Amino acid sequence: MNNSMNTLTPSAFRALVRSGKFTANTSGVAQGFVQGNIVILPQDWAQDFLLFCQKNPKPCPLIGLSNKAGDFLLTELGENIDIRTDVPNYRVFEHGKIVREVSDIQDLWRDDLVTFVLGCSFSFEEALLADGLEIRNISEQKNVPMYTTNIACKSAGRFSGNMVVSMRPMLAKDAIRAIQICSRFPAVHGAPVHLGEPSLIGINDLAQTDFGDTVTIKANEIPVFWACGVTPQVALANAKPPFCITHSPGAMLVTDIANSKLAIL
Amino acid sequence: MNNSMNTLTPSAFRALVRSGKFTANTSGVAQGFVQGNIVILPQDWAQDFLLFCQKNPKPCPLIGLSNKAGDFLLTELGENIDIRTDVPNYRVFEHGKIVREVSDIQDLWRDDLVTFVLGCSFSFEEALLADGLEIRNISEQKNVPMYTTNIACKSAGRFSGNMVVSMRPMLAKDAIRAIQICSRFPAVHGAPVHLGEPSLIGINDLAQTDFGDTVTIKANEIPVFWACGVTPQVALANAKPPFCITHSPGAMLVTDIANSKLAIL
Repeated sequence: MNNSMNTLTPSAFRALVRSGKFTANTSGVAQGFVQGNIVILPQDWAQDFLLFCQKNPKPCPLIGLSNKAGDFLLTELGENIDIRTDVPNYRVFEHGKIVREVSDIQDLWRDDLVTFVLGCSFSFEEALLADGLEIRNISEQKNVPMYTTNIACKSAGRFSGNMVVSMRPMLAKDAIRAIQICSRFPAVHGAPVHLGEPSLIGINDLAQTDFGDTVTIKANEIPVFWACGVTPQVALANAKPPFCITHSPGAMLVTDIANSKLAIL
Repeated sequence: MNNSMNTLTPSAFRALVRSGKFTANTSGVAQGFVQGNIVILPQDWAQDFLLFCQKNPKPCPLIGLSNKAGDFLLTELGENIDIRTDVPNYRVFEHGKIVREVSDIQDLWRDDLVTFVLGCSFSFEEALLADGLEIRNISEQKNVPMYTTNIACKSAGRFSGNMVVSMRPMLAKDAIRAIQICSRFPAVHGAPVHLGEPSLIGINDLAQTDFGDTVTIKANEIPVFWACGVTPQVALANAKPPFCITHSPGAMLVTDIANSKLAIL
């Protein structure tokens, strides 16, 4: 985390990104503002993906969408956001395989592309920290541990797959408080989907993450599991669309929307 | 549970109680309306007890109070409620000991008595049932299991003691939902105070209840613990005021307040 980035406005931060001077992880930058996972698909795949998000709002909470195919501006999410230049790093997929990782997709843009922006856990982690809860992956400066579960998402056209969850260990009383806080934020995964015994959702060993790092689980803590934005990436990997662009892991789009605006109450 | 009582209006039910025709447990009667735990104390003890309730709102959620000492009407809780006659059964205590159990306290009434009405779990159980959750003590037609914990209440004057909790076993996903629902109802104990490992709050054996019955805990269920209205009764037993009247366990005051009115959102 680059501390000088923390207090930048979202538009000042995006200007840095657009100039190519920032291509890294956005955790902690422009604090207080919503960051989004990015999925860009050709229009003939976008309809199925939209349906997949609508059917699976906990792992795939849609917070923004292109006004029409080919439109690279996301006016509802912030001033002058250009999705071709304003994400620090992109992954380009062909038929489900990463073919390159780039910091700008102007030369790849097409008139049939549709952009999806999905809420991410950074927003609710900020709300939990503000309440005085400890977030272990933040304390230990690691990526949050993520696991593939046996919870099937609802299929939509060519998209299907099991839910991926992130895990944060907590004392029970803190888990109860986290459920209350996260329930206010359905647009960033909402309340946890499970807590306690991992095997009940198909996780056999917390020490074996499917994505991210492991974190310390202290005595008397229970694992608390949230639906995770890696879920749609797994569905994309399963579906293997001929062409797709996503953000690189952790290198998110920073929007002008205050995290607090996502609170439903 | 007497099914013919379920659909009575609160005032019709209280008329039955007042006539002496109903002296039993009020679980399920006048469905949809708030029932209250009753504590009646002399004025010189009432100030400490009020402070105890204010300091410990989860176990002692105050929903009604005499307008002034000696006033036996509780106008804010319902039409023509007379606390001397409208509770099905009363326990009379002297110096912390039960001296009699009666269905009417008109001859015991004094000008210095102050009545406290505290919210009870019947209200949140109704909200959980309405959402489709199973409440084991209801399914098994038992009293809810209750346990004394090692969680100290905040002392107030002569009142002190550890928190008593009620326990309902649930699958984790139902526990998460129950936390969301109960968070809307702080006046009836609010969100659970603990879940999972009982020993973390000083409960060594769930098969040994301190009050109430045991219930079945099925495979994959976790115990979920709520602050319980027996807590103030324990504080009263510790304080041993020279004179005190409470409802008999389960024989509550039925008010005219709809359970839904207690929801804060």
